[in-house]
Amino acid sequence: MAEVHATRRDRLRERCAAAGVGAALVTRPANVRYLTGCAPPGSALLVGPGGDDILVHLRPPPDDDGGQRGGAGPQTAPDDLRSTVLPAPDGDAAVAAATLARESHAGSLAVEEHHLTVARHRAIRSVTDGMPMSDLGGAVEQLRLVKDEHEIAALRIAAEIADQALGELLESILVGRTERHLALELERRLVDHGADCAAFPTSVGTGPHSGTARHIPTDRRVEEGDFLTVRLGACYRGYRCEVGRTFVIGTAPAGWQIDLYDLVFNAQRAGREALAPGVACRDVDGATRGPLLAAGHGEGVAQWSGHGVGLEIDEDPQLSPAAMGKLDACVPVTVEPGVHLPGRGGVRIDDTLVVRPVADGGPELLTITTKELLAL
Amino acid sequence: MAEVHATRRDRLRERCAAAGVGAALVTRPANVRYLTGCAPPGSALLVGPGGDDILVHLRPPPDDDGGQRGGAGPQTAPDDLRSTVLPAPDGDAAVAAATLARESHAGSLAVEEHHLTVARHRAIRSVTDGMPMSDLGGAVEQLRLVKDEHEIAALRIAAEIADQALGELLESILVGRTERHLALELERRLVDHGADCAAFPTSVGTGPHSGTARHIPTDRRVEEGDFLTVRLGACYRGYRCEVGRTFVIGTAPAGWQIDLYDLVFNAQRAGREALAPGVACRDVDGATRGPLLAAGHGEGVAQWSGHGVGLEIDEDPQLSPAAMGKLDACVPVTVEPGVHLPGRGGVRIDDTLVVRPVADGGPELLTITTKELLAL
Repeated sequence: MAEVHATRRDRLRERCAAAGVGAALVTRPANVRYLTGCAPPGSALLVGPGGDDILVHLRPPPDDDGGQRGGAGPQTAPDDLRSTVLPAPDGDAAVAAATLARESHAGSLAVEEHHLTVARHRAIRSVTDGMPMSDLGGAVEQLRLVKDEHEIAALRIAAEIADQALGELLESILVGRTERHLALELERRLVDHGADCAAFPTSVGTGPHSGTARHIPTDRRVEEGDFLTVRLGACYRGYRCEVGRTFVIGTAPAGWQIDLYDLVFNAQRAGREALAPGVACRDVDGATRGPLLAAGHGEGVAQWSGHGVGLEIDEDPQLSPAAMGKLDACVPVTVEPGVHLPGRGGVRIDDTLVVRPVADGGPELLTITTKELLAL
Repeated sequence: MAEVHATRRDRLRERCAAAGVGAALVTRPANVRYLTGCAPPGSALLVGPGGDDILVHLRPPPDDDGGQRGGAGPQTAPDDLRSTVLPAPDGDAAVAAATLARESHAGSLAVEEHHLTVARHRAIRSVTDGMPMSDLGGAVEQLRLVKDEHEIAALRIAAEIADQALGELLESILVGRTERHLALELERRLVDHGADCAAFPTSVGTGPHSGTARHIPTDRRVEEGDFLTVRLGACYRGYRCEVGRTFVIGTAPAGWQIDLYDLVFNAQRAGREALAPGVACRDVDGATRGPLLAAGHGEGVAQWSGHGVGLEIDEDPQLSPAAMGKLDACVPVTVEPGVHLPGRGGVRIDDTLVVRPVADGGPELLTITTKELLAL
């Protein structure tokens, strides 16, 4: 795996060279992890012109065993990467790395201005002795867009864990339990099945809370006749997926519930079927959003129909009306339309898929929990 | 409670006026919450010269019920505070607030340069039309140092919840259970007893993992003869406390375990007893650290002996050898020495206390779980 990270750093190095930048200072944790395989808290990576890359990090705690709970990942650098412990225990690794850049005569330094605070940027500038500084922008995020097969394999396992946790919940008694307890139980099951941690705070919404994207679980209890919306994800080796489903509680759904479910189901299917290399992100959004707008649900629909996933749960590309750009093969995205009717509740259906060309069988569905309207 | 927040904003306004600053733009979430009582994600607060404060936030989700899980707090602004929804759904509330500052002819704008990224700072500058911008620095963090009785009351309840969760765990069978399961169970109990969420990721370390500050729970199981170190905290109405204890598993501790425990216990007591208004923070650290250094444990001891708590779990003041400043009354801090012996484990004891003058009975201990060496 170490070669994978070295190759990624080489690609960043090429981009820097093409832009006339001497060295890149990477501080955003997911970007550090992408380029090194590890992300010790507060670490900073210097990608230099000659392959002399250095990871500056804090002294690892004495009990460091590479534990991955919390998703921070292994805390020690791979063998092929020079790593150095932050000289001052209360210092800033980015400042220490910038000092090394100055000493190595890199010429100029690009930093992540969308991640560094103004105060840290000033501290870095104060040690670089007039060396020109520029904005690295989203260069590493761009590299992260298209996933390799190792990354997709991790996402597949993350999706399998989320499906398992959700499947077990469906076999248990739900009526009378609170949203908070169901959410906590799902998170416990994710870890039981091997997740590093939950990919994001699990959302469980019942009755009037159902159908929204980011409902924070409350003490409301599941009741007969409710819609129940669940949205959860696992983080596995740093890679995060998500799955969302809506069920109905009791013997048979009401007419309005069946109609609303069918509408969202069809919108979500249209979005999934629109995924292909070369398709504009906004067109996938349009395919998903169109049926909901046509049915008069403009108000209750979110600003986006889906987004990329990977080392972060919400990455590029965005699937929204204003999104620029087109999909590539091997880009994992969510498709997650929903409709919420104030006071009544609603439906959300959320899958993680990998964009694949038709020749490879079209989009690969990672989250395979059934999308039938189950009455539980 | 609304007056409390208005009074806090007035204090910030006075500081700004004294520094010749027209308006302050507050973006750090804990600071926004301190000044408004709420902290909708991505919100920004403009504190203007004439009391015309404005909170800019995203449109609340349709199911907003002020749910507090996750510790984000109520999502809607109090009645006395003008609030406005971010005009562009994918915009930046800080940029929108800066536009309002320009329109209000505030004259100059101080921003939180330790929180804003370089990219956001640039976006703000681009809409302020040449209005002078300066650094607000830690002005709000300074206001947050000394807590009022409402804040201390919330911390007391947070401590009570953490003590309850820990107490229940001690009554259960521990041998054979994994660190991860014990940590998850503690977090569930925190929520069961009314916590908004865990104040930080619960740490459970057994055997060779015991005695460290931030051990990430693993699948290691509790064994007879182990030291077991637990560190957890509750977040209640946004306020976060912590408690840490070390126990021994089995019938009787070994001689080295008793000796090490006594050493850390005495160090922690010395630190607690050193807490008083007017005492230098570094002297509290010295009182705590001294016994450990004298016993030859320089290597295995952390860089700090404690820290402030409040809306964040790690706030000013720091109790460390290099800390400047003195303690004030009504400042809650942790005292948490520990010694870790590589390969064997160790002891940590961690309390949250409020600094009080001797006339008021001296430091107020919030976390009252026993510090006897229990054999479980």
